[in-house]
Amino acid sequence: MKKVNIALLGLGTVGGGTYDILTKNRDIILERTGVDYEITHIFEKYATQLEKHGAPLSLQTLDIDSIIESDDVDVIVECLGGMDFPVSVMTRALKNGISVVTPNKAAVAANYDMLHSAAEEGHAYLKFEAAVGGGIPILTTIQEQLAGNHFTDIMGILNGTTNYILTKMLKQGQKYEDALSDAKKNGFAEPDPTADVEGIDCANKLCLLMVLAMGKYVNPQQIPTKGITDVTMEDIQAAYNRGCVIKLIAHASLTDDGFEYYVKPEEIPLDHPLASVSNEFNAIYLDGDAVGELMFYGKGAGALPTGSAIVGDIIAIMKGLQNE
Amino acid sequence: MKKVNIALLGLGTVGGGTYDILTKNRDIILERTGVDYEITHIFEKYATQLEKHGAPLSLQTLDIDSIIESDDVDVIVECLGGMDFPVSVMTRALKNGISVVTPNKAAVAANYDMLHSAAEEGHAYLKFEAAVGGGIPILTTIQEQLAGNHFTDIMGILNGTTNYILTKMLKQGQKYEDALSDAKKNGFAEPDPTADVEGIDCANKLCLLMVLAMGKYVNPQQIPTKGITDVTMEDIQAAYNRGCVIKLIAHASLTDDGFEYYVKPEEIPLDHPLASVSNEFNAIYLDGDAVGELMFYGKGAGALPTGSAIVGDIIAIMKGLQNE
Repeated sequence: MKKVNIALLGLGTVGGGTYDILTKNRDIILERTGVDYEITHIFEKYATQLEKHGAPLSLQTLDIDSIIESDDVDVIVECLGGMDFPVSVMTRALKNGISVVTPNKAAVAANYDMLHSAAEEGHAYLKFEAAVGGGIPILTTIQEQLAGNHFTDIMGILNGTTNYILTKMLKQGQKYEDALSDAKKNGFAEPDPTADVEGIDCANKLCLLMVLAMGKYVNPQQIPTKGITDVTMEDIQAAYNRGCVIKLIAHASLTDDGFEYYVKPEEIPLDHPLASVSNEFNAIYLDGDAVGELMFYGKGAGALPTGSAIVGDIIAIMKGLQNE
Repeated sequence: MKKVNIALLGLGTVGGGTYDILTKNRDIILERTGVDYEITHIFEKYATQLEKHGAPLSLQTLDIDSIIESDDVDVIVECLGGMDFPVSVMTRALKNGISVVTPNKAAVAANYDMLHSAAEEGHAYLKFEAAVGGGIPILTTIQEQLAGNHFTDIMGILNGTTNYILTKMLKQGQKYEDALSDAKKNGFAEPDPTADVEGIDCANKLCLLMVLAMGKYVNPQQIPTKGITDVTMEDIQAAYNRGCVIKLIAHASLTDDGFEYYVKPEEIPLDHPLASVSNEFNAIYLDGDAVGELMFYGKGAGALPTGSAIVGDIIAIMKGLQNE
């Protein structure tokens, strides 16, 4: 049985979490898959990052071409962040027959057709489970275990930063600005939180959910998107008095009347399953014509949850490669 | 590409739901899998059941040997119910290289090793996603997308009948007996509800979760099991006053101190994700060393939800067979 060779591009938070799971949980991965694997390259500028995770320095390289033009690399894990460089790297790798796993929602959402075509051209796998809901296994589940369903309705709490802020505003009566600085202090918001609080991150994720669950690609820039910067404590209190909580909701519905989609703050009744999704947690609620209502709940970010989803993708690819 | 031939054994509630999804959602299943399939046999005594679902009467047969000794049948879907006959049928089919999909939790839980060995002997697939949580895709997800995790804690609300009864007792102040007869009236309890209210159904499901998530097989009869027949309105009210709801919980935890498992009514704090799982809904809450806390919520029973899980299993097998 062929050993699968993996190259990690970027050993920051998510790349590092992925490295840790692949090394520490090697026993259970081998037991569940029966497939052996090896990390052969780590594309990372800082040797300290390799040292931090106990990775051999001999794996470090800054020669991207030697990875994506290699005949020996089977899978690359793109944790570079950004847009132009990772998109170029992923496209070239896929065309060269190297499978790609990425958590980069913005890159995949904006370039879905091109990356999908590159994967088809190279007969390679493109997987991005970690791009939506972090550790929550939603995208593959829609395509595999739930493949017998037409999905008519999807509602997601897809951004941990905004959910944390809205929860603090409700439960501790904090103003938006105070809750945001609290989120930054606790590592739930980036120094520049624009993409989160303006709903852009949610729009990228909704784009990916719609294309996989409903077969409809809409460029994220075409998704009507409103963030939470205008939500006041008074709005939240008034909603609560009506028996609702305000959540930043990404919503898509496909009915005989048409196809609707948007990201915006919405009032969710307290007895709806999404209402109790608090703090930094994410959840995806969907309705299939066979399965009915379903909800998936978990951690939408973080090194190990996101790494868990990436490792799940790597495992699926390893199994697929053995069958070729 | 080979067409996959499917035999349905039993066209009652779940078999009928499976038939409906396989015929009505054929378009999306073909699109998502690229694999063609045909229902070639329906083992069912009552022709009226075939008529009810618009199935051609030419598919009806009562000759089980012609199915499980056939070289043309690729997958059987066992919806017969019961124990001895379905176990014998599944074992013979698996040894003959025919893959098996079943929602029969009692049969698989009691005979896991034997059925698993038969599948290995016949190089066939044995899948039973529908046996735990009905439509909720939990078992395959543990083995595939979450395969990079060691699971240390599983808590489930795995029985819709008892959850419906406990919800009515809490929300409408009904006595146990009244809530049970209400559940029967609304189709959420069997005429003989013993296996549900005594926790036996939950123990079977916990057995399957433990073997797949933790790699530990415990015969369901060895799982300490207590049902809800002794739970009073006073217990429920007192728990609520302490900020808790009483749920019938199936629990397994694997720590350095040992392996613990049981089924019993437990007080769940109102801010725990399982607390808001009401009525006939099921949920599985689990903790993995990489992914952290996760919860899956959905319909634990019913023709179409259970059929959705069975169809998901059929699809996985169809894809696997194409790669052989």
